[in-house]
Amino acid sequence: MQRTPALATESDVIVVGAGLAGLACARALARAGRSVRVLEARARVGGRTWSERMGNAVFDRGGQWLGPGQDRLAALVREYSIATFPTWDEGRKLLEYRGEVLAYDGTIPKLPALALLDLHLGLRRLDALTRQVARPPLSTPDAPRLDGTSVAQWMDAQLHTDAARAVVAAALRVVFGAEPEEISLLYALDYARAGGGFMKLVEVRGGAQETRFVNGAQSVANALAAELGDRVQPGAPVRAIDQSGASGAPVVVVSDAWRFTAERVVVAVPPALAAGIAYTPALPPPREQVHQRMPMGATVKVHLLYDRPFWRARGFSGEAVFERGPISVVFDNTSHDGAQPALVAFIVGDPARTWSLRPEDVRRETVLSLVGRLFGEAARRPTAYVEVDWSTEPYSRGCPVGVFAAGSVRVAGPALQAPTGRIHWAGTETATVFTGYMEGALQSAERVFDELMPLLP
Amino acid sequence: MQRTPALATESDVIVVGAGLAGLACARALARAGRSVRVLEARARVGGRTWSERMGNAVFDRGGQWLGPGQDRLAALVREYSIATFPTWDEGRKLLEYRGEVLAYDGTIPKLPALALLDLHLGLRRLDALTRQVARPPLSTPDAPRLDGTSVAQWMDAQLHTDAARAVVAAALRVVFGAEPEEISLLYALDYARAGGGFMKLVEVRGGAQETRFVNGAQSVANALAAELGDRVQPGAPVRAIDQSGASGAPVVVVSDAWRFTAERVVVAVPPALAAGIAYTPALPPPREQVHQRMPMGATVKVHLLYDRPFWRARGFSGEAVFERGPISVVFDNTSHDGAQPALVAFIVGDPARTWSLRPEDVRRETVLSLVGRLFGEAARRPTAYVEVDWSTEPYSRGCPVGVFAAGSVRVAGPALQAPTGRIHWAGTETATVFTGYMEGALQSAERVFDELMPLLP
Repeated sequence: MQRTPALATESDVIVVGAGLAGLACARALARAGRSVRVLEARARVGGRTWSERMGNAVFDRGGQWLGPGQDRLAALVREYSIATFPTWDEGRKLLEYRGEVLAYDGTIPKLPALALLDLHLGLRRLDALTRQVARPPLSTPDAPRLDGTSVAQWMDAQLHTDAARAVVAAALRVVFGAEPEEISLLYALDYARAGGGFMKLVEVRGGAQETRFVNGAQSVANALAAELGDRVQPGAPVRAIDQSGASGAPVVVVSDAWRFTAERVVVAVPPALAAGIAYTPALPPPREQVHQRMPMGATVKVHLLYDRPFWRARGFSGEAVFERGPISVVFDNTSHDGAQPALVAFIVGDPARTWSLRPEDVRRETVLSLVGRLFGEAARRPTAYVEVDWSTEPYSRGCPVGVFAAGSVRVAGPALQAPTGRIHWAGTETATVFTGYMEGALQSAERVFDELMPLLP
Repeated sequence: MQRTPALATESDVIVVGAGLAGLACARALARAGRSVRVLEARARVGGRTWSERMGNAVFDRGGQWLGPGQDRLAALVREYSIATFPTWDEGRKLLEYRGEVLAYDGTIPKLPALALLDLHLGLRRLDALTRQVARPPLSTPDAPRLDGTSVAQWMDAQLHTDAARAVVAAALRVVFGAEPEEISLLYALDYARAGGGFMKLVEVRGGAQETRFVNGAQSVANALAAELGDRVQPGAPVRAIDQSGASGAPVVVVSDAWRFTAERVVVAVPPALAAGIAYTPALPPPREQVHQRMPMGATVKVHLLYDRPFWRARGFSGEAVFERGPISVVFDNTSHDGAQPALVAFIVGDPARTWSLRPEDVRRETVLSLVGRLFGEAARRPTAYVEVDWSTEPYSRGCPVGVFAAGSVRVAGPALQAPTGRIHWAGTETATVFTGYMEGALQSAERVFDELMPLLP
């Protein structure tokens, strides 16, 4: 390296990335008496959780829900006395299908009888396949064929009505931020398995959208960071990691203005970002392939604030599914005390990727026109409109999660969790429970902590 | 940015990467009277062409062949008086299939009659599909289905004998450095179209392996670089490109020790490497997806030097195909004057990715045992054994080319060539003729030159 950053302190472990995975891993190390430093590119902590005041309440520009079975996250919430509340789930839901708006109760939209039967049978087949997925997923019977098949190909073969396909596609788009064409069936099944089944991932009551955070989901990262204190170094994007030193020499981690040394390094950012770090020596090809073939899903999250939750008065829950974009789903997102009525809309997959190319007024008008069609004229007049395009966040490059395309689990799956010399890999993409969720980030932190402890001097 | 590199000169265009694409584009600009600077990460130019003396001759660690139809490359060869010679193609070829070694003439191995028929019909169907591919490939009839299908799925459906599948798979592995499971059928067809048809890509006589360079293929890059003189700056890996300045302000390109400014920037490295540059503002999501979902193929190239070309004496051409790895193909690679007899073996796809994880003596023993099985005991005693694992080259991260998996042309294909503000994208991955070849690199340089000229002040 030609530059010579200032020398800095040594520690047992350097963690790259102050998202939930990195912070939780660092906290565990610190509590075990290890010296640890967390390097974060942004000025804030939290990664894909990012909370901000909008109107009369704090809302989440990123991840925002806690669900049953997410025990590590629930434990942190209890430990730090973080206030939560149930996601609003009263009233009828809406499906916009072929220009018509249909109201329904429960999780499954009210489709024509044949489409409904098709959808039920399809979801049952998906659940049956999910239950067959083994750990690691490549040990599943028929794994090469399942990985070689895209979710779109499965849908083409197993769903027979356009309506069922449209509903399944909308749900998958929201879960992955990706189109069914982009997702390996084996990866999707393993992801569903990790989250307790496909239906759990899309449900509010009893599912992954059950509970919200009064002060936003970033509360958790903020609490972890507060405990870690000045061990967390914001504004320090990591550019290079060098573990080529002689035996006994530390690993060198290079940021723009600093150079740090440690016994071990934990990279706790998504593979697509880990790809931006220069490694010496070069990563072994299987790990390099993880970095090259786990593109991030695309999500634009739009908050619409209102004076009143007028949809509730009309008997609607605020939840709606659109057959086609640009919006895929809408939820009621009113604050816990009702002080700030709000809807939140998700634009995901293909439309999310083209979203930022459009003029701002066209984007806004598109969203308002769609929510207006669902909830009437009042929906067209929010007091505030706030959109976050995660694909253009340089230190996320997409949301909610990195996704394997058909054929990629075979190439890169086995290298997802394996340490590379003295580099260990955390982050929700490496989780085996609730992959892609905050809970997964915490589980990956636990795994890496368990890897590290016997190895530290 | 917190660092403050020394200020440097301004130019019309900065080119990132001194491979063939970058150098050819820079030369065209320089000849048109424009000021241009080429920043190269390595100490050498040439990218995936890299020639080196081994024994009594110069051999290519990287790309090494010139074929008919590669007119831009042929023109440079003439212009710089670079000596070439025909690839050795006399004698019988060998196929190792299920432990047996079968000799054959021509391009198609001598398989059992049924397998041979299967192979002929399969290749004919592949050619028919290739002729249907339109420009851009997504405008091909049935494009979504072709892109959503992997080459492996096509082979499963269209080839009916294991032997035909094995031969087609071995050929594809060598062309792409990837397994059939990893490649979008539409991408493979468009790649074959760009190269004049699938058979042209695998043939020696009349195909892409027809001609070699007396002093190695890097001669071309070296000649271009010599003409460019001190416009080429080696040892300057580009870390960041900032085009967020006010209207009229230049684009800023940041390397480790320098900061350069220009009107326009040409990024002439593969997408998987372009992903490692920090862009301000963030790239639009479709371009970002190109960087996240075009993993590099994997190739290990092994040179075996001998005292005598003993295989020729036994009537063999030196060309051989293995049904399964780790070697996929072998060629005679003897120097033009016969002074240095040599074989070259290609380990590609899956085996290439695990290659560098094995101990060196196991790797060597594996190669020698396989060539020994083909050509007898003499093959086991080379005077030199030289292997290059392109996946561990930090400034290539794979070879020969970046590949789109099933579903990826749809997401990222349209953004491959489109400029992003004042950044233009060159490199063989962006070519529409001979994609993945040196010729493609030159064609991409031409396209970008044509893009730039009307835009420069």
